Amino acid sequence: MISFLNDYSQTAHDKVLSRLIEAGTRSYPGYGLDERSLRAARLIKKLIKQDADIHFMPGGTSCNKTVIAHALKPFEAVIAVKSGHINVHETGAVEASGHKILQIEGRDGKATPGEIIKILETHNNEHMVVPKMVYISNSTETGTIYAKAELEEIAKLCRENGMFLFLDGARLGAALTAAKNDLTLADIALLTDAFYIGGTKNGAMLGEAVVITNDKLKAGFRHSMKLNGAMLAKGFVVGMQFEALFEDGLFFRLAEKANQAAMKLRDGLLNRGIKFRYPVETNQIFVAFPAHIVDSLSRKYLFEIWEEVKDGAVIRLVTSWATKTNEIDAFLTDLDTVNK
Amino acid sequence: MISFLNDYSQTAHDKVLSRLIEAGTRSYPGYGLDERSLRAARLIKKLIKQDADIHFMPGGTSCNKTVIAHALKPFEAVIAVKSGHINVHETGAVEASGHKILQIEGRDGKATPGEIIKILETHNNEHMVVPKMVYISNSTETGTIYAKAELEEIAKLCRENGMFLFLDGARLGAALTAAKNDLTLADIALLTDAFYIGGTKNGAMLGEAVVITNDKLKAGFRHSMKLNGAMLAKGFVVGMQFEALFEDGLFFRLAEKANQAAMKLRDGLLNRGIKFRYPVETNQIFVAFPAHIVDSLSRKYLFEIWEEVKDGAVIRLVTSWATKTNEIDAFLTDLDTVNK
Amino acid sequence: MISFLNDYSQTAHDKVLSRLIEAGTRSYPGYGLDERSLRAARLIKKLIKQDADIHFMPGGTSCNKTVIAHALKPFEAVIAVKSGHINVHETGAVEASGHKILQIEGRDGKATPGEIIKILETHNNEHMVVPKMVYISNSTETGTIYAKAELEEIAKLCRENGMFLFLDGARLGAALTAAKNDLTLADIALLTDAFYIGGTKNGAMLGEAVVITNDKLKAGFRHSMKLNGAMLAKGFVVGMQFEALFEDGLFFRLAEKANQAAMKLRDGLLNRGIKFRYPVETNQIFVAFPAHIVDSLSRKYLFEIWEEVKDGAVIRLVTSWATKTNEIDAFLTDLDTVNK
Amino acid sequence: MISFLNDYSQTAHDKVLSRLIEAGTRSYPGYGLDERSLRAARLIKKLIKQDADIHFMPGGTSCNKTVIAHALKPFEAVIAVKSGHINVHETGAVEASGHKILQIEGRDGKATPGEIIKILETHNNEHMVVPKMVYISNSTETGTIYAKAELEEIAKLCRENGMFLFLDGARLGAALTAAKNDLTLADIALLTDAFYIGGTKNGAMLGEAVVITNDKLKAGFRHSMKLNGAMLAKGFVVGMQFEALFEDGLFFRLAEKANQAAMKLRDGLLNRGIKFRYPVETNQIFVAFPAHIVDSLSRKYLFEIWEEVKDGAVIRLVTSWATKTNEIDAFLTDLDTVNK
Repeated sequence: MISFLNDYSQTAHDKVLSRLIEAGTRSYPGYGLDERSLRAARLIKKLIKQDADIHFMPGGTSCNKTVIAHALKPFEAVIAVKSGHINVHETGAVEASGHKILQIEGRDGKATPGEIIKILETHNNEHMVVPKMVYISNSTETGTIYAKAELEEIAKLCRENGMFLFLDGARLGAALTAAKNDLTLADIALLTDAFYIGGTKNGAMLGEAVVITNDKLKAGFRHSMKLNGAMLAKGFVVGMQFEALFEDGLFFRLAEKANQAAMKLRDGLLNRGIKFRYPVETNQIFVAFPAHIVDSLSRKYLFEIWEEVKDGAVIRLVTSWATKTNEIDAFLTDLDTVNK
Repeated sequence: MISFLNDYSQTAHDKVLSRLIEAGTRSYPGYGLDERSLRAARLIKKLIKQDADIHFMPGGTSCNKTVIAHALKPFEAVIAVKSGHINVHETGAVEASGHKILQIEGRDGKATPGEIIKILETHNNEHMVVPKMVYISNSTETGTIYAKAELEEIAKLCRENGMFLFLDGARLGAALTAAKNDLTLADIALLTDAFYIGGTKNGAMLGEAVVITNDKLKAGFRHSMKLNGAMLAKGFVVGMQFEALFEDGLFFRLAEKANQAAMKLRDGLLNRGIKFRYPVETNQIFVAFPAHIVDSLSRKYLFEIWEEVKDGAVIRLVTSWATKTNEIDAFLTDLDTVNK
Repeated sequence: MISFLNDYSQTAHDKVLSRLIEAGTRSYPGYGLDERSLRAARLIKKLIKQDADIHFMPGGTSCNKTVIAHALKPFEAVIAVKSGHINVHETGAVEASGHKILQIEGRDGKATPGEIIKILETHNNEHMVVPKMVYISNSTETGTIYAKAELEEIAKLCRENGMFLFLDGARLGAALTAAKNDLTLADIALLTDAFYIGGTKNGAMLGEAVVITNDKLKAGFRHSMKLNGAMLAKGFVVGMQFEALFEDGLFFRLAEKANQAAMKLRDGLLNRGIKFRYPVETNQIFVAFPAHIVDSLSRKYLFEIWEEVKDGAVIRLVTSWATKTNEIDAFLTDLDTVNK
Repeated sequence: MISFLNDYSQTAHDKVLSRLIEAGTRSYPGYGLDERSLRAARLIKKLIKQDADIHFMPGGTSCNKTVIAHALKPFEAVIAVKSGHINVHETGAVEASGHKILQIEGRDGKATPGEIIKILETHNNEHMVVPKMVYISNSTETGTIYAKAELEEIAKLCRENGMFLFLDGARLGAALTAAKNDLTLADIALLTDAFYIGGTKNGAMLGEAVVITNDKLKAGFRHSMKLNGAMLAKGFVVGMQFEALFEDGLFFRLAEKANQAAMKLRDGLLNRGIKFRYPVETNQIFVAFPAHIVDSLSRKYLFEIWEEVKDGAVIRLVTSWATKTNEIDAFLTDLDTVNK
């Protein structure tokens, strides 16, 4: 089976693995207080062009839950698009920590200023939660990306209204290396109060780097990590991986490779007159097929059924740094056969 | 100022107050374990025509939060219409206890089976919360009521899918005495797993009676009350009030009076060609007026601005057992003056 | 049966009840935003000799849970003596809101500075919760009271270490009118960051007044009340009761009566050579009796078995504003009969 | 510096690392639903000699928090010794999920039946939490182990009182390979309702295996993992490690090595007449030294200051599978030099 199922199906990129091996029998202090984690943090700080608190966590849900619970008072809530990862695919982790998610429709997976403003206007008394944070993802759950102007507008809105802006970067590599992207890591650090850089979906074995730029969110964050079970005893194994990813741009090269594979697949589909469910901007492609095509393809390819639709389904095709050109060719060829 | 603001602006109905006075210097055991609470519970059990666990609580948010948190495991969620009280007007109390509210649009404030089914179909793996309860209100936030057939259909759906059905009866009196109502208290007890009978909005000084019919929800409920701050030391003062409300039908007479006042107001508005935002079925009337009429009326009458609309507002007019005929006449007359 | 069970077994003192009756058919705004609550708050502010935010709540557990959850971040904890109400008798309400109680032994129910310092010294890294609040009761669970010097020392310690000091005043009336008390309400307001004045156990039908003097705890408190189910729709009924209690010193007179009854009972017991489990300073007396005496007394008197001890039990005898002299005489006489 | 700081300072044992490398570019399903995790689970099931649900988690706090929160209703609590990891070193993670820890003194880090019984006897009404689980560690925080008879007695007590028994096995390898151990993995599976086998502290890069034998705790556990951020996207990397540890007994060999190193160190200390703070049974040694010795040793050796004592400190010396004989020799020699 050829897999377009996700971007986290292999242990890790070779260079990342090598680092873990090379560490050999050296001893490191626990809980992320080691020189490898510190060096990885320095590499990231160089890229974001400012100082920040950087914490390495085991996974995305941990990042989201810990940052949100750390930032909000009991009566405060976070605004997110309906399709947001925290709203749909984290089994209520944010609510389990006591906070409501104020849902907005969004457009192509992205929050819109108008909807945020409406939430602010209507939440005006003590019978309602206080919107205190906006949560966005880049790239989004539907593979789209924020333009710099879009992010600036939301950031401005948040600052004017005393809200934190938190960006889920599980696939930040894919966003920053997308063809139409005009944001840098430094822009994101400047415009948000906290964000995380996803390792798991971009070549690491596990691990994400939470970057906190707003001083108000810094104090006690390691306590919050620990109580959320997000402080690994061997934190250094995540630090080493981020060293490998960030010391010479591997992080960006891997993401670019994933995007290039997606663009090749997109072009192949476009040439066959196929329409996309969402704009194809990064390494996730959403496309509707009739049931018989879905069935036929699913015999040789792994992918996720995203949504049942009339007489068929929207499927999600995900590429990664490990996707091979011939896998895409094979998919398109098989599609032609079925589609005849 | 004449008040159409809500149905909880006076201390309590005379008969209810008298009971509190008559108790004089008698001593009662604390925490609801007194004979007055027991008698009030017996009166309710007679009306619901079955045995049940009955608990007296201080207010509606306490009832909702306590029942829901008591019933659900950490990964389980409650389905409710967007406009539901728990979703909008309880400052995230359900989420604060750790549970997600799965929102559906509803129709006229009521949950529809189709939407519940869709939630069940899509929540099918461990990355999503498990829908385990349906929360409805009767009457609803918009003053509408459930027909028996509607409630039966939802109850059937819940049972077939292993979900609890919980009915918020903050205004259950109004629902059960509405002209088009075909439900009895016994029907509600039969069809739901738990519900509460609202005293605060129907003549009591404070207090609601939670009725639990499903054995699975009975064990430990008093523990849940206590930890939610919903077990009054002097529980007997709520018991006494429910005795007064239920020993000779006062509860229903007061609710009927509130509905009659609403119907008089509705007819007056209808005669003036005014259209309603929602079907007027109980003691809450929602109607849109141009801004100058809202302004003018607000100088003599208290009411809530429900929603800003183009060039005006939807206002909510609430009647109660204490609303006087001449207050309605005055309102209509003043409306005519402004409207000329 | 004559009751020494507790100080909350009767509806309310006459004057308090009268206020509720006198309100008649007047309408008041909901949720504590009424002129009666405002006036009651002004009366309290006059006594505490400073401005403060004052909120009326339905009961003690609500006060404790709401204040503590409002004040603490997820990784912060509250220090309390083991016998503290929040630690033993609130069914884990504080933990249910997410916070650890750091237990200290205390002395006669009172926190000691040395133990607080030890907690501060040992909680010094991110694997441990951060002590951020000290919770004390006055009078304590065992009926003792804080001397001004004791409270000053703890307050100083809290301020020097960035901790909030919160005083549970469920029986604050009894404390402030105790013979050896040297604290005023103004002292308490000055020395703590928040405290509450208990109505339920001192003549009110229900209700406690939370007083917040530290600005850091003020913002959003009404939101916290609502989400904890502690904001009564008819808040004015609590406001009226506190007006009655505080406009001419009734609050203090009732508490003094309870203490006087206790002192009479204490003296009677002392004259019979009986020893007390804790110093008798307010309206709670703890005394050990052999099993046959406990059994015999329990046929005519209601009281709580506090603790089983070898060959008998420590019982708790509570007096209140409603305790009659002849009830105490009867108890002592019956004790003599049994004891012969 | 030679490290006796902990047993998790190196990436992983060679064989474990090799497995991660060998996986190469193979693709696996996410979230622990892969054949490597399944095989690892089968290997464990063979050793415990019964069927069970087995889940791989990233770390110990995740295991403890997830199992406890999954098992308990909101008003239920877990009993643990004061020195228990959940009570001291997880930053209130259990309380953050809403549950009280009922603390008992214990003896040498172990829970005693008498104390558990006392908790059960005193927690008898709805003002108190319900003890529903006993949490123990083997080996304990102080390095001691449970004898089979001890564990049987606690298990019996739990079953008779409807409580779950949960065993924290962060250092279970060390316990099971201790000289005086008479328990097998199968015994532990039989006597507890859930336990976990620690990988992090015994040769793995990260990961623990939660074993659930009680059917009541099985349903929905993966949901609980996800909402607690404890479901790794690349779950297979933990599965692979447990395959390496359990397919030929490496897990036990590594633990035995750690214990042997500890015994050598213990014997060396004993020969020098040094007394231990707790019985030395596994790979943790607690010993008090005067301040000047602690200072001197700390220049060449890493270890934890466990507790300040008069004129010195109790230090913790931890050995692991990676501790070398010459490191122990060096320590003892240096001790002699200082001690002269």
